[in-house]
Amino acid sequence: MTMVGALLEANARFAETFDASGIHAPRFALLTCMDGRLDPARFLDLAPGDAHVIRNAGGRADADAIRSIVVSYRLLGTREIVVVHHEDCGMMRFTNDELRDMLRADLGLDASQIDFLPFSDLDESVRVDVRMLRQCPLIPDAIPISGFVYDVSSGRLREVR
Amino acid sequence: MTMVGALLEANARFAETFDASGIHAPRFALLTCMDGRLDPARFLDLAPGDAHVIRNAGGRADADAIRSIVVSYRLLGTREIVVVHHEDCGMMRFTNDELRDMLRADLGLDASQIDFLPFSDLDESVRVDVRMLRQCPLIPDAIPISGFVYDVSSGRLREVR
Repeated sequence: MTMVGALLEANARFAETFDASGIHAPRFALLTCMDGRLDPARFLDLAPGDAHVIRNAGGRADADAIRSIVVSYRLLGTREIVVVHHEDCGMMRFTNDELRDMLRADLGLDASQIDFLPFSDLDESVRVDVRMLRQCPLIPDAIPISGFVYDVSSGRLREVR
Repeated sequence: MTMVGALLEANARFAETFDASGIHAPRFALLTCMDGRLDPARFLDLAPGDAHVIRNAGGRADADAIRSIVVSYRLLGTREIVVVHHEDCGMMRFTNDELRDMLRADLGLDASQIDFLPFSDLDESVRVDVRMLRQCPLIPDAIPISGFVYDVSSGRLREVR
């Protein structure tokens, strides 16, 4: 079976017992990493609708995350922002130059203008992104922003200040 | 209790029974919307690790999604891309000008340079983003890309061609 077929089959099983009632209004926007080991609905015990979940490589506060957060608070009513990075993140295993060299070798492309946003200090990456959001003029000062690290080996979250 | 306290308490309950064994290697990158009604791990029956999950307002193929997808396939081994937008998406309820006017009124800011990527035709928004990824020089032609719409009222996914 193709992957598309397998996904549609898995979804058909899900839809058989799907219940759309009891959806909450979104309370907060969560910015976290795309890593497949992270299931925020489970590790934060989110009810359907509870949070807007914004995910990218690293959980970084880049321009697109800010676009999404502005839509989230201004149009869709969230009132708090939570940033979660995680232990053993793939973003700590390469540098911009290494990835740019790979893309040049593979595809003959110059990606020197792209910052892939890798980092080497996990706690500091959380602080940098929380600070970036706090300082962003598009995000009102009244919106609380907190930062965390999730441990993929224990399932535990700890706050980063 | 503060929201941070409540999240940490919910997470402590989760971590009590957390089991990190049996994590899959990621097979594909999923690009979908931040909407809290979408729980892709459930509606695609994903096992932990199965997919990189990239989420933003609308599930749009913007520059940051492409940054994440490049990291996903080139460094972390995914081999397919799946785009999922959804019925009743908040991105169909405003225009760029309306949101820019709100930000000017609220914060005195000029956001005329930001495209918030709203859309009016749901199926077409999937086609546009699939095409954008297919045409992106940073993504090799050999990577299959498929597009879907998820129905938040039935839980059902349908392919968009």
